[in-house]
Amino acid sequence: MALRAAGRQSLVDGVVEQLRAQLAEGEWQVGDRVPTEHALAEQLQVGRNTVREAVRVLVHAGMLQSRQGEGTFVVSTSDPAEVMRGVRRAGIRDVLELRIALEAEGARLAALRHSADDLRRIRATLESLEAFGRAGEQSADGHHELHAAHDLEFHTAVVEAAHNAALSATYGWFSSSVRDALVASLGDREVPSIVPADHRALVDAIASGDPAAAEAAARALLETPKRAIEALLATG
Amino acid sequence: MALRAAGRQSLVDGVVEQLRAQLAEGEWQVGDRVPTEHALAEQLQVGRNTVREAVRVLVHAGMLQSRQGEGTFVVSTSDPAEVMRGVRRAGIRDVLELRIALEAEGARLAALRHSADDLRRIRATLESLEAFGRAGEQSADGHHELHAAHDLEFHTAVVEAAHNAALSATYGWFSSSVRDALVASLGDREVPSIVPADHRALVDAIASGDPAAAEAAARALLETPKRAIEALLATG
Repeated sequence: MALRAAGRQSLVDGVVEQLRAQLAEGEWQVGDRVPTEHALAEQLQVGRNTVREAVRVLVHAGMLQSRQGEGTFVVSTSDPAEVMRGVRRAGIRDVLELRIALEAEGARLAALRHSADDLRRIRATLESLEAFGRAGEQSADGHHELHAAHDLEFHTAVVEAAHNAALSATYGWFSSSVRDALVASLGDREVPSIVPADHRALVDAIASGDPAAAEAAARALLETPKRAIEALLATG
Repeated sequence: MALRAAGRQSLVDGVVEQLRAQLAEGEWQVGDRVPTEHALAEQLQVGRNTVREAVRVLVHAGMLQSRQGEGTFVVSTSDPAEVMRGVRRAGIRDVLELRIALEAEGARLAALRHSADDLRRIRATLESLEAFGRAGEQSADGHHELHAAHDLEFHTAVVEAAHNAALSATYGWFSSSVRDALVASLGDREVPSIVPADHRALVDAIASGDPAAAEAAARALLETPKRAIEALLATG
Protein backbone atom coordinates (compact mmCIF):
# COMPACT_ATOMS: atom_id res chain seq x y z
CA MET A 1 0.00 0.00 0.00
CA ALA A 2 2.78 2.42 0.95
CA LEU A 3 4.72 1.41 -2.16
CA ARG A 4 1.71 1.89 -4.40
CA ALA A 5 1.10 5.31 -2.92
CA ALA A 6 4.73 6.30 -3.47
CA GLY A 7 4.62 5.07 -7.08
CA ARG A 8 1.45 6.99 -7.72
CA GLN A 9 2.93 10.10 -6.13
CA SER A 10 5.94 10.16 -8.44
CA LEU A 11 3.65 9.47 -11.41
CA VAL A 12 1.59 12.56 -10.59
CA ASP A 13 4.77 14.58 -10.05
CA GLY A 14 5.99 13.42 -13.46
CA VAL A 15 2.78 14.56 -15.15
CA VAL A 16 2.97 17.91 -13.33
CA GLU A 17 6.54 18.41 -14.60
CA GLN A 18 5.53 17.40 -18.11
CA LEU A 19 2.60 19.82 -18.25
CA ARG A 20 4.64 22.61 -16.66
CA ALA A 21 7.34 22.10 -19.31
CA GLN A 22 4.74 22.20 -22.11
CA LEU A 23 3.38 25.46 -20.66
CA ALA A 24 6.86 26.98 -20.29
CA GLU A 25 7.76 26.04 -23.86
CA GLY A 26 4.67 27.81 -25.14
CA GLU A 27 2.79 24.75 -26.41
CA TRP A 28 -0.33 26.41 -24.99
CA GLN A 29 -0.73 30.18 -24.66
CA VAL A 30 -2.51 32.17 -21.99
CA GLY A 31 -6.24 31.88 -22.69
CA ASP A 32 -5.94 28.54 -24.53
CA ARG A 33 -7.97 25.55 -23.47
CA VAL A 34 -5.74 22.57 -22.65
CA PRO A 35 -6.76 19.11 -23.91
CA THR A 36 -9.35 17.16 -21.91
CA GLU A 37 -8.39 14.82 -19.07
CA HIS A 38 -9.17 11.94 -21.39
CA ALA A 39 -6.90 13.23 -24.17
CA LEU A 40 -4.05 14.06 -21.78
CA ALA A 41 -4.31 10.62 -20.16
CA GLU A 42 -4.01 8.98 -23.57
CA GLN A 43 -1.19 11.26 -24.70
CA LEU A 44 0.86 10.73 -21.53
CA GLN A 45 -0.12 7.07 -21.07
CA VAL A 46 -1.37 7.50 -17.53
CA GLY A 47 -4.72 7.14 -15.77
CA ARG A 48 -7.33 9.91 -15.70
CA ASN A 49 -7.06 10.21 -11.91
CA THR A 50 -3.36 10.92 -12.28
CA VAL A 51 -4.09 13.66 -14.83
CA ARG A 52 -6.83 15.07 -12.60
CA GLU A 53 -4.44 15.29 -9.64
CA ALA A 54 -1.72 16.92 -11.75
CA VAL A 55 -4.18 19.48 -13.13
CA ARG A 56 -5.31 20.28 -9.59
CA VAL A 57 -1.69 21.02 -8.64
CA LEU A 58 -1.36 23.43 -11.57
CA VAL A 59 -4.70 25.09 -10.80
CA HIS A 60 -3.51 25.79 -7.25
CA ALA A 61 -0.16 26.97 -8.63
CA GLY A 62 -2.06 29.65 -10.57
CA MET A 63 -1.11 28.29 -14.02
CA LEU A 64 -4.43 26.67 -15.00
CA GLN A 65 -8.05 27.51 -14.28
CA SER A 66 -10.98 25.09 -14.48
CA ARG A 67 -14.26 26.56 -15.68
CA GLN A 68 -17.25 24.33 -15.07
CA GLY A 69 -18.67 22.89 -18.27
CA GLU A 70 -16.05 24.68 -20.40
CA GLY A 71 -12.78 22.91 -19.61
CA THR A 72 -9.39 23.92 -18.27
CA PHE A 73 -7.65 27.09 -19.45
CA VAL A 74 -4.13 28.52 -19.24
CA VAL A 75 -3.88 31.61 -17.02
CA SER A 76 -0.08 31.76 -16.72
CA THR A 77 2.77 29.99 -18.46
CA SER A 78 5.25 30.61 -15.65
CA ASP A 79 5.07 29.05 -12.20
CA PRO A 80 5.21 31.48 -9.27
CA ALA A 81 6.58 28.69 -7.03
CA GLU A 82 9.59 28.40 -9.37
CA VAL A 83 10.26 32.12 -8.94
CA MET A 84 10.13 31.67 -5.19
CA ARG A 85 12.64 28.83 -5.44
CA GLY A 86 14.87 31.01 -7.65
CA VAL A 87 14.77 33.86 -5.15
CA ARG A 88 15.50 31.46 -2.30
CA ARG A 89 18.54 30.09 -4.13
CA ALA A 90 19.88 33.62 -4.78
CA GLY A 91 22.54 35.04 -2.48
CA ILE A 92 21.77 37.30 0.44
CA ARG A 93 23.17 40.37 -1.38
CA ASP A 94 20.76 39.77 -4.26
CA VAL A 95 17.80 39.37 -1.94
CA LEU A 96 18.63 42.59 -0.09
CA GLU A 97 18.95 44.50 -3.36
CA LEU A 98 15.51 43.34 -4.44
CA ARG A 99 14.12 44.40 -1.09
CA ILE A 100 15.77 47.80 -1.56
CA ALA A 101 14.17 48.19 -5.00
CA LEU A 102 10.68 47.46 -3.67
CA GLU A 103 11.03 49.68 -0.61
CA ALA A 104 12.57 52.55 -2.59
CA GLU A 105 9.60 52.48 -5.00
CA GLY A 106 7.21 52.23 -2.05
CA ALA A 107 8.80 55.28 -0.41
CA ARG A 108 8.78 57.28 -3.67
CA LEU A 109 5.08 56.60 -4.26
CA ALA A 110 4.18 57.03 -0.58
CA ALA A 111 5.58 60.57 -0.76
CA LEU A 112 3.16 61.29 -3.62
CA ARG A 113 0.05 59.50 -2.36
CA HIS A 114 0.01 59.09 1.42
CA SER A 115 -3.13 60.03 3.33
CA ALA A 116 -3.19 61.54 6.83
CA ASP A 117 -4.09 58.08 8.15
CA ASP A 118 -1.09 56.52 6.37
CA LEU A 119 1.23 59.04 8.00
CA ARG A 120 -0.26 58.36 11.45
CA ARG A 121 0.26 54.63 10.97
CA ILE A 122 3.85 55.08 9.75
CA ARG A 123 4.66 57.29 12.75
CA ALA A 124 3.04 54.83 15.18
CA THR A 125 5.13 51.93 13.82
CA LEU A 126 8.27 54.09 14.02
CA GLU A 127 7.53 54.90 17.67
CA SER A 128 7.16 51.18 18.46
CA LEU A 129 10.43 50.48 16.69
CA GLU A 130 12.26 53.27 18.55
CA ALA A 131 10.75 52.27 21.91
CA PHE A 132 11.92 48.73 21.29
CA GLY A 133 15.42 50.02 20.49
CA ARG A 134 15.51 52.07 23.72
CA ALA A 135 14.44 49.04 25.79
CA GLY A 136 17.78 47.75 24.56
CA GLU A 137 17.76 44.09 25.57
CA GLN A 138 20.40 43.51 22.93
CA SER A 139 21.40 40.07 24.09
CA ALA A 140 18.00 38.66 25.05
CA ASP A 141 16.71 35.59 23.26
CA GLY A 142 14.39 36.43 20.43
CA HIS A 143 15.58 40.04 20.31
CA HIS A 144 16.47 39.90 16.63
CA GLU A 145 13.17 38.32 15.69
CA LEU A 146 11.25 40.99 17.60
CA HIS A 147 13.34 43.79 16.13
CA ALA A 148 12.79 42.37 12.64
CA ALA A 149 9.04 42.19 13.29
CA HIS A 150 8.90 45.86 14.37
CA ASP A 151 11.07 46.86 11.43
CA LEU A 152 8.81 44.94 9.04
CA GLU A 153 5.72 46.68 10.44
CA PHE A 154 7.31 50.05 9.71
CA HIS A 155 8.36 49.18 6.17
CA THR A 156 5.02 47.54 5.43
CA ALA A 157 3.25 50.73 6.55
CA VAL A 158 5.47 52.74 4.15
CA VAL A 159 4.87 50.39 1.22
CA GLU A 160 1.12 50.37 1.82
CA ALA A 161 1.04 54.18 1.81
CA ALA A 162 2.07 53.88 -1.86
CA HIS A 163 -1.48 52.63 -2.59
CA ASN A 164 -0.25 50.13 -5.15
CA ALA A 165 -1.87 46.67 -4.81
CA ALA A 166 0.72 44.93 -7.02
CA LEU A 167 3.61 46.39 -5.02
CA SER A 168 1.96 45.52 -1.68
CA ALA A 169 1.30 41.91 -2.77
CA THR A 170 4.86 41.42 -4.00
CA TYR A 171 6.44 43.10 -0.99
CA GLY A 172 4.28 41.14 1.45
CA TRP A 173 5.28 37.84 -0.11
CA PHE A 174 8.86 38.91 -0.34
CA SER A 175 9.27 40.21 3.18
CA SER A 176 7.56 37.32 4.95
CA SER A 177 9.23 34.54 2.97
CA VAL A 178 12.65 35.81 2.15
CA ARG A 179 13.45 37.10 5.62
CA ASP A 180 13.66 33.46 6.68
CA ALA A 181 16.29 32.84 4.02
CA LEU A 182 18.24 35.86 5.28
CA VAL A 183 18.13 34.68 8.88
CA ALA A 184 19.15 31.17 7.81
CA SER A 185 22.16 32.39 5.82
CA LEU A 186 23.37 34.61 8.66
CA GLY A 187 23.09 31.80 11.22
CA ASP A 188 24.17 32.89 14.69
CA ARG A 189 26.00 35.98 13.54
CA GLU A 190 24.82 39.26 14.98
CA VAL A 191 22.50 41.17 12.62
CA PRO A 192 23.76 44.77 12.45
CA SER A 193 21.32 47.15 14.11
CA ILE A 194 19.98 50.21 12.32
CA VAL A 195 20.29 53.74 13.67
CA PRO A 196 16.71 55.04 14.25
CA ALA A 197 17.59 58.51 12.89
CA ASP A 198 17.60 57.06 9.36
CA HIS A 199 13.99 55.99 9.80
CA ARG A 200 13.01 59.53 10.84
CA ALA A 201 14.58 60.93 7.65
CA LEU A 202 12.41 58.60 5.57
CA VAL A 203 9.23 59.58 7.41
CA ASP A 204 10.05 63.30 7.05
CA ALA A 205 10.66 62.92 3.31
CA ILE A 206 7.33 61.10 2.84
CA ALA A 207 5.50 63.70 4.94
CA SER A 208 6.99 66.54 2.89
CA GLY A 209 5.76 64.92 -0.33
CA ASP A 210 9.20 64.71 -1.96
CA PRO A 211 9.48 61.41 -3.91
CA ALA A 212 13.22 61.75 -4.72
CA ALA A 213 14.12 62.48 -1.09
CA ALA A 214 11.92 59.60 0.10
CA GLU A 215 13.57 57.21 -2.33
CA ALA A 216 17.05 58.36 -1.29
CA ALA A 217 16.17 57.97 2.41
CA ALA A 218 14.80 54.45 1.84
CA ARG A 219 17.97 53.49 -0.01
CA ALA A 220 20.22 54.99 2.68
CA LEU A 221 18.30 53.04 5.32
CA LEU A 222 19.07 49.74 3.64
CA GLU A 223 22.56 50.45 2.30
CA THR A 224 24.08 50.32 5.78
CA PRO A 225 22.77 46.87 6.78
CA LYS A 226 23.50 45.63 3.26
CA ARG A 227 27.17 46.62 3.56
CA ALA A 228 27.40 45.26 7.10
CA ILE A 229 25.88 41.93 6.06
CA GLU A 230 28.19 41.71 3.04
CA ALA A 231 31.17 42.33 5.31
CA LEU A 232 29.96 39.70 7.77
CA LEU A 233 29.50 37.13 5.03
CA ALA A 234 32.91 37.97 3.55
CA THR A 235 34.62 37.30 6.87
CA GLY A 236 32.32 34.44 7.95
CA MET B 1 -18.40 8.54 -10.93
CA ALA B 2 -18.25 12.15 -12.14
CA LEU B 3 -20.09 13.25 -9.00
CA ARG B 4 -17.80 11.29 -6.74
CA ALA B 5 -14.78 12.82 -8.49
CA ALA B 6 -16.22 16.31 -8.10
CA GLY B 7 -16.97 15.70 -4.42
CA ARG B 8 -13.48 14.41 -3.83
CA GLN B 9 -12.04 17.38 -5.73
CA SER B 10 -13.75 19.94 -3.50
CA LEU B 11 -12.76 17.90 -0.43
CA VAL B 12 -9.08 18.13 -1.42
CA ASP B 13 -9.48 21.85 -2.20
CA GLY B 14 -11.05 22.34 1.22
CA VAL B 15 -8.10 20.63 2.93
CA VAL B 16 -5.65 22.72 0.87
CA GLU B 17 -7.42 25.91 1.99
CA GLN B 18 -7.47 24.74 5.61
CA LEU B 19 -3.74 23.94 5.65
CA ARG B 20 -2.88 27.14 3.81
CA ALA B 21 -4.84 29.14 6.40
CA GLN B 22 -3.07 27.37 9.25
CA LEU B 23 0.29 28.19 7.63
CA ALA B 24 -0.66 31.83 7.02
CA GLU B 25 -1.84 32.20 10.63
CA GLY B 26 1.52 30.98 11.88
CA GLU B 27 0.33 27.70 13.43
CA TRP B 28 3.49 26.16 11.99
CA GLN B 29 6.69 28.15 11.40
CA VAL B 30 9.27 27.79 8.66
CA GLY B 31 11.38 24.72 9.51
CA ASP B 32 8.62 23.04 11.57
CA ARG B 33 7.46 19.53 10.79
CA VAL B 34 3.72 19.39 10.12
CA PRO B 35 1.67 16.56 11.68
CA THR B 36 1.67 13.17 9.91
CA GLU B 37 -0.87 12.30 7.22
CA HIS B 38 -2.56 10.09 9.77
CA ALA B 39 -2.82 12.86 12.36
CA LEU B 40 -4.03 15.43 9.81
CA ALA B 41 -6.63 13.00 8.46
CA GLU B 42 -7.99 12.46 11.99
CA GLN B 43 -7.89 16.15 12.83
CA LEU B 44 -9.69 17.21 9.63
CA GLN B 45 -11.98 14.16 9.49
CA VAL B 46 -11.01 13.19 5.95
CA GLY B 47 -9.27 10.21 4.35
CA ARG B 48 -5.49 9.88 4.18
CA ASN B 49 -5.55 10.00 0.37
CA THR B 50 -7.27 13.37 0.55
CA VAL B 51 -4.58 14.66 2.93
CA ARG B 52 -1.85 13.23 0.70
CA GLU B 53 -3.27 15.03 -2.36
CA ALA B 54 -3.59 18.31 -0.47
CA VAL B 55 -0.02 18.04 0.81
CA ARG B 56 1.18 17.43 -2.74
CA VAL B 57 -0.49 20.64 -3.87
CA LEU B 58 1.30 22.60 -1.13
CA VAL B 59 4.64 20.94 -1.91
CA HIS B 60 4.34 22.05 -5.53
CA ALA B 61 3.26 25.50 -4.36
CA GLY B 62 6.60 25.78 -2.55
CA MET B 63 5.07 25.95 0.93
CA LEU B 64 5.88 22.41 2.15
CA GLN B 65 8.75 20.02 1.49
CA SER B 66 8.65 16.23 1.96
CA ARG B 67 11.88 14.62 3.17
CA GLN B 68 11.92 10.85 2.82
CA GLY B 69 11.78 9.10 6.19
CA GLU B 70 11.66 12.40 8.06
CA GLY B 71 8.24 13.85 7.31
CA THR B 72 6.89 17.04 5.78
CA PHE B 73 8.36 20.44 6.67
CA VAL B 74 7.30 24.07 6.24
CA VAL B 75 9.49 26.02 3.79
CA SER B 76 7.26 29.07 3.35
CA THR B 77 4.17 30.33 5.12
CA SER B 78 3.01 32.47 2.20
CA ASP B 79 1.77 31.13 -1.11
CA PRO B 80 3.47 32.54 -4.24
CA ALA B 81 0.35 31.73 -6.28
CA GLU B 82 -1.66 34.05 -4.03
CA VAL B 83 0.81 36.85 -4.76
CA MET B 84 0.38 36.21 -8.46
CA ARG B 85 -3.39 36.43 -8.08
CA GLY B 86 -2.97 39.65 -6.11
CA VAL B 87 -0.80 41.18 -8.82
CA ARG B 88 -3.24 40.06 -11.51
CA ARG B 89 -6.15 41.68 -9.69
CA ALA B 90 -4.22 44.95 -9.35
CA GLY B 91 -4.85 47.75 -11.82
CA ILE B 92 -2.69 48.38 -14.88
CA ARG B 93 -1.13 51.49 -13.32
CA ASP B 94 -0.01 49.44 -10.31
CA VAL B 95 1.47 46.75 -12.51
CA LEU B 96 3.39 49.27 -14.59
CA GLU B 97 4.77 50.94 -11.48
CA LEU B 98 6.06 47.61 -10.20
CA ARG B 99 7.68 46.98 -13.58
CA ILE B 100 9.29 50.42 -13.40
CA ALA B 101 10.69 49.65 -9.93
CA LEU B 102 12.27 46.40 -11.10
CA GLU B 103 13.70 47.87 -14.31
CA ALA B 104 15.01 50.98 -12.57
CA GLU B 105 16.90 48.82 -10.08
CA GLY B 106 18.12 46.60 -12.91
CA ALA B 107 19.44 49.64 -14.79
CA ARG B 108 21.09 51.09 -11.69
CA LEU B 109 22.92 47.82 -10.94
CA ALA B 110 23.72 47.16 -14.60
CA ALA B 111 25.59 50.48 -14.69
CA LEU B 112 27.75 49.24 -11.81
CA ARG B 113 28.27 45.62 -12.84
CA HIS B 114 27.86 45.11 -16.59
CA SER B 115 30.50 43.12 -18.45
CA ALA B 116 31.61 43.79 -22.04
CA ASP B 117 29.44 40.83 -23.09
CA ASP B 118 26.41 42.30 -21.32
CA LEU B 119 26.87 45.57 -23.19
CA ARG B 120 27.16 43.76 -26.54
CA ARG B 121 23.96 41.85 -25.81
CA ILE B 122 22.10 45.00 -24.74
CA ARG B 123 23.21 46.81 -27.92
CA ALA B 124 22.24 43.86 -30.13
CA THR B 125 18.72 43.74 -28.66
CA LEU B 126 18.42 47.51 -29.09
CA GLU B 127 19.40 47.21 -32.76
CA SER B 128 16.73 44.55 -33.30
CA LEU B 129 14.17 46.75 -31.60
CA GLU B 130 15.13 49.79 -33.70
CA ALA B 131 15.21 47.78 -36.94
CA PHE B 132 11.75 46.51 -36.12
CA GLY B 133 10.57 50.07 -35.50
CA ARG B 134 12.01 51.25 -38.87
CA ALA B 135 10.28 48.39 -40.72
CA GLY B 136 7.18 50.19 -39.49
CA GLU B 137 4.36 47.80 -40.30
CA GLN B 138 2.34 49.69 -37.75
CA SER B 139 -1.01 48.28 -38.70
CA ALA B 140 -0.03 44.68 -39.47
CA ASP B 141 -1.53 41.85 -37.44
CA GLY B 142 0.67 40.74 -34.58
CA HIS B 143 2.73 43.95 -34.73
CA HIS B 144 2.14 44.78 -31.06
CA GLU B 145 3.04 41.28 -29.91
CA LEU B 146 6.28 41.37 -31.93
CA HIS B 147 7.17 44.85 -30.73
CA ALA B 148 6.49 43.75 -27.15
CA ALA B 149 8.72 40.69 -27.65
CA HIS B 150 11.63 42.83 -28.95
CA ASP B 151 11.10 45.33 -26.15
CA LEU B 152 11.11 42.54 -23.57
CA GLU B 153 14.37 41.14 -24.96
CA PHE B 154 16.00 44.53 -24.54
CA HIS B 155 14.77 45.04 -20.98
CA THR B 156 15.62 41.47 -20.00
CA ALA B 157 19.18 42.03 -21.27
CA VAL B 158 19.42 45.16 -19.09
CA VAL B 159 18.06 43.41 -15.99
CA GLU B 160 20.39 40.45 -16.45
CA ALA B 161 23.40 42.79 -16.69
CA ALA B 162 22.64 43.63 -13.05
CA HIS B 163 23.91 40.14 -12.12
CA ASN B 164 21.29 39.68 -9.44
CA ALA B 165 19.60 36.24 -9.49
CA ALA B 166 16.70 37.31 -7.26
CA LEU B 167 15.95 40.33 -9.46
CA SER B 168 16.21 38.28 -12.67
CA ALA B 169 13.86 35.57 -11.33
CA THR B 170 11.28 38.11 -10.18
CA TYR B 171 11.50 40.20 -13.35
CA GLY B 172 11.27 37.10 -15.56
CA TRP B 173 8.12 35.92 -13.83
CA PHE B 174 6.71 39.39 -13.78
CA SER B 175 7.36 40.29 -17.39
CA SER B 176 6.11 37.02 -18.87
CA SER B 177 2.98 36.71 -16.74
CA VAL B 178 1.86 40.22 -16.16
CA ARG B 179 2.27 41.39 -19.75
CA ASP B 180 -0.70 39.18 -20.58
CA ALA B 181 -2.78 40.99 -17.97
CA LEU B 182 -1.69 44.31 -19.52
CA VAL B 183 -2.65 43.24 -23.03
CA ALA B 184 -5.99 41.89 -21.77
CA SER B 185 -6.89 45.11 -19.97
CA LEU B 186 -6.02 47.26 -23.00
CA GLY B 187 -8.09 45.11 -25.34
CA ASP B 188 -8.06 46.40 -28.91
CA ARG B 189 -6.78 49.84 -28.03
CA GLU B 190 -3.57 50.95 -29.66
CA VAL B 191 -0.56 50.53 -27.39
CA PRO B 192 1.42 53.78 -27.49
CA SER B 193 4.75 53.26 -29.22
CA ILE B 194 8.00 54.25 -27.58
CA VAL B 195 10.54 56.62 -29.15
CA PRO B 196 13.77 54.62 -29.65
CA ALA B 197 15.94 57.58 -28.56
CA ASP B 198 14.94 56.93 -24.94
CA HIS B 199 16.38 53.45 -25.20
CA ARG B 200 19.72 54.85 -26.43
CA ALA B 201 19.92 57.15 -23.41
CA LEU B 202 19.54 54.15 -21.11
CA VAL B 203 22.25 52.17 -22.90
CA ASP B 204 24.64 55.16 -22.81
CA ALA B 205 24.08 55.65 -19.07
CA ILE B 206 24.76 51.97 -18.37
CA ALA B 207 27.89 52.02 -20.57
CA SER B 208 29.21 55.12 -18.75
CA GLY B 209 28.82 53.34 -15.42
CA ASP B 210 26.54 55.97 -13.89
CA PRO B 211 23.86 54.26 -11.73
CA ALA B 212 21.79 57.41 -11.06
CA ALA B 213 21.68 58.33 -14.76
CA ALA B 214 20.79 54.73 -15.69
CA GLU B 215 17.97 54.66 -13.18
CA ALA B 216 16.65 58.02 -14.39
CA ALA B 217 16.78 56.84 -18.03
CA ALA B 218 14.93 53.61 -17.18
CA ARG B 219 12.23 55.59 -15.37
CA ALA B 220 11.91 58.10 -18.21
CA LEU B 221 11.52 55.22 -20.67
CA LEU B 222 8.52 53.85 -18.81
CA GLU B 223 6.93 57.08 -17.60
CA THR B 224 5.78 57.96 -21.12
CA PRO B 225 3.88 54.70 -21.85
CA LYS B 226 2.57 54.73 -18.29
CA ARG B 227 1.01 58.17 -18.76
CA ALA B 228 -0.28 57.24 -22.22
CA ILE B 229 -1.88 54.06 -20.94
CA GLU B 230 -3.42 55.89 -17.99
CA ALA B 231 -4.90 58.45 -20.39
CA LEU B 232 -6.23 55.67 -22.65
CA LEU B 233 -7.85 53.86 -19.73
CA ALA B 234 -9.32 57.12 -18.42
CA THR B 235 -11.03 57.81 -21.74
CA GLY B 236 -11.84 54.16 -22.53
